[in-house]
Amino acid sequence: MYQLTFEDIIMLLLYNDNFLILTHKKPDGDTLGSGAALCLALREKGKTAFMHDSGEIGKRYYDLCKNLFPKKNFKADFIISVDVADFKLLPDNAQCYAEEIMLNIDHHPSNKNYAGHNYIDSNASATGEIIYDITEKLQIKASKNIMMPIYVAISTDTGCFCYSNTTAKAHCVAAKAIEAGVDVGNINKSLFETKSNARIAIERELYNNMKYFCDKQIAFTTLTRKAIEECKASEDDIDNLSAILRKIEGVECAVTGIEQVSGDMKISVRSGDRVDSSNVCALIGGGGHKRAAGAIISKENVKEQLSILLAHIEEELNG
Amino acid sequence: MYQLTFEDIIMLLLYNDNFLILTHKKPDGDTLGSGAALCLALREKGKTAFMHDSGEIGKRYYDLCKNLFPKKNFKADFIISVDVADFKLLPDNAQCYAEEIMLNIDHHPSNKNYAGHNYIDSNASATGEIIYDITEKLQIKASKNIMMPIYVAISTDTGCFCYSNTTAKAHCVAAKAIEAGVDVGNINKSLFETKSNARIAIERELYNNMKYFCDKQIAFTTLTRKAIEECKASEDDIDNLSAILRKIEGVECAVTGIEQVSGDMKISVRSGDRVDSSNVCALIGGGGHKRAAGAIISKENVKEQLSILLAHIEEELNG
Repeated sequence: MYQLTFEDIIMLLLYNDNFLILTHKKPDGDTLGSGAALCLALREKGKTAFMHDSGEIGKRYYDLCKNLFPKKNFKADFIISVDVADFKLLPDNAQCYAEEIMLNIDHHPSNKNYAGHNYIDSNASATGEIIYDITEKLQIKASKNIMMPIYVAISTDTGCFCYSNTTAKAHCVAAKAIEAGVDVGNINKSLFETKSNARIAIERELYNNMKYFCDKQIAFTTLTRKAIEECKASEDDIDNLSAILRKIEGVECAVTGIEQVSGDMKISVRSGDRVDSSNVCALIGGGGHKRAAGAIISKENVKEQLSILLAHIEEELNG
Repeated sequence: MYQLTFEDIIMLLLYNDNFLILTHKKPDGDTLGSGAALCLALREKGKTAFMHDSGEIGKRYYDLCKNLFPKKNFKADFIISVDVADFKLLPDNAQCYAEEIMLNIDHHPSNKNYAGHNYIDSNASATGEIIYDITEKLQIKASKNIMMPIYVAISTDTGCFCYSNTTAKAHCVAAKAIEAGVDVGNINKSLFETKSNARIAIERELYNNMKYFCDKQIAFTTLTRKAIEECKASEDDIDNLSAILRKIEGVECAVTGIEQVSGDMKISVRSGDRVDSSNVCALIGGGGHKRAAGAIISKENVKEQLSILLAHIEEELNG
């Protein structure tokens, strides 16, 4: 697979115009921050550039992008995707561009190299790191305007510099953002420290229904659809609940079961070194990664399949 | 008040020997990380240096210091305090040194300059930043050994680079720590992402007892001594609960009331811009800062004093 050099990207950006930048579906801070910063950088070089509007951008990130959506009748000559590992991950209203993407900039090692040109740097903690390098190489001033979305990108994907993927470079770029005047305290408060009333209600449910197994090494919770509705919780409000259980001291494996509208149960498993989440989920027809995996259990078999799952986790812990 | 220059500190360190380093009571990552790094740095310069053992060091930080406590019969010639804003904040078993501290290194703007020599840099996000500068000036290699406690110091005081006090310098030093091989993912998991079973039980109580007032702008919870005992919670487990309530979207003021062993109630108030926590606590005999304050209500007047407090918060919010 032909991979671009960093200099190739710069040439592509400088020798083209009328850019449209695509982000992934269920957009997060890295895809949106990277897209916004690249868009602003291209504009500073005198180019016409817009971000595609997926219609899915949550209010947390909306301000980053709101002035960057295309005018009517804009016809792109050069389409770029940022932080999109696979064209299947494009939003529904961007699937029409799947075959036309000329440049794919990403940091996911699983990237499918689906575009005309692909630049994947899996050493970067966030696509935002790569975008920073691009702005630097384009000799664009590290202004507050450009550094803010780059900071959002990196802070999101490193869990505010907390996760093990955090690179020295991520910190160096954050330092430049602060020097440029970016208000990191307020950004992080909105990204990491604000919970909706519904999220609080859901966390209360989670705590109230929680059970421990296997010497408190397994923490397990289910949420019924009725409870979710009573909490008035959106999909966003019930996201990543298993991470809460994984934080409990001594818990090696966290399992959540969320009842779906259909009555089936969506299982999420998060584990430390001693359990292979992917293996145990495979036993009930699911899959994923070693530390994070999932499955859907049909409503007829919930009890039985849950027993199988928990028994296998216990076996791995005792094995 | 005479303040040292940075070069003065370096001279003091180079021209003295037999150092004892004091940390503050209820020690956190900044005081212990700064103390450990300074101790290691002095040893690298061939000096004899130890950290005072307050006997209060939690298991989270114990490994940082365990090899740095004095041998029996060690007699210090030069006593340094790190991150200690006032000699009253020394641990009980270090109060005997209060009059003998020769060098006070700190970043708290409220530092009382109580020592023979004082070096206070309130621009530093953590005392750890100052210690990093000292190691650099002493031409000590930024090894993993030295950079680990410095990282702990800075990460603790910036809430893992999340709070508004985070400086560009804090990020630059963190970058050096990662380059030196410090395992920041695991450190942060232990510092920020691990909750005891008792803490989880207390958070469940908190959620279950929570009430909103004033259009959900005030969140309020009390915890009875009985509940605290049933959760088997230590003082550490019930620390900073009002911060949880302040994270709720729309909550401008969070109030917690924790029943003490005596039956009195300890009130903590955390607020945004629109309420002055210090003012409202003053009305019930307490005090503190604008954004964080507290009071103790005697058991006879709990209901009445709480009403006064909540009414005044509501007034400030509507005013």
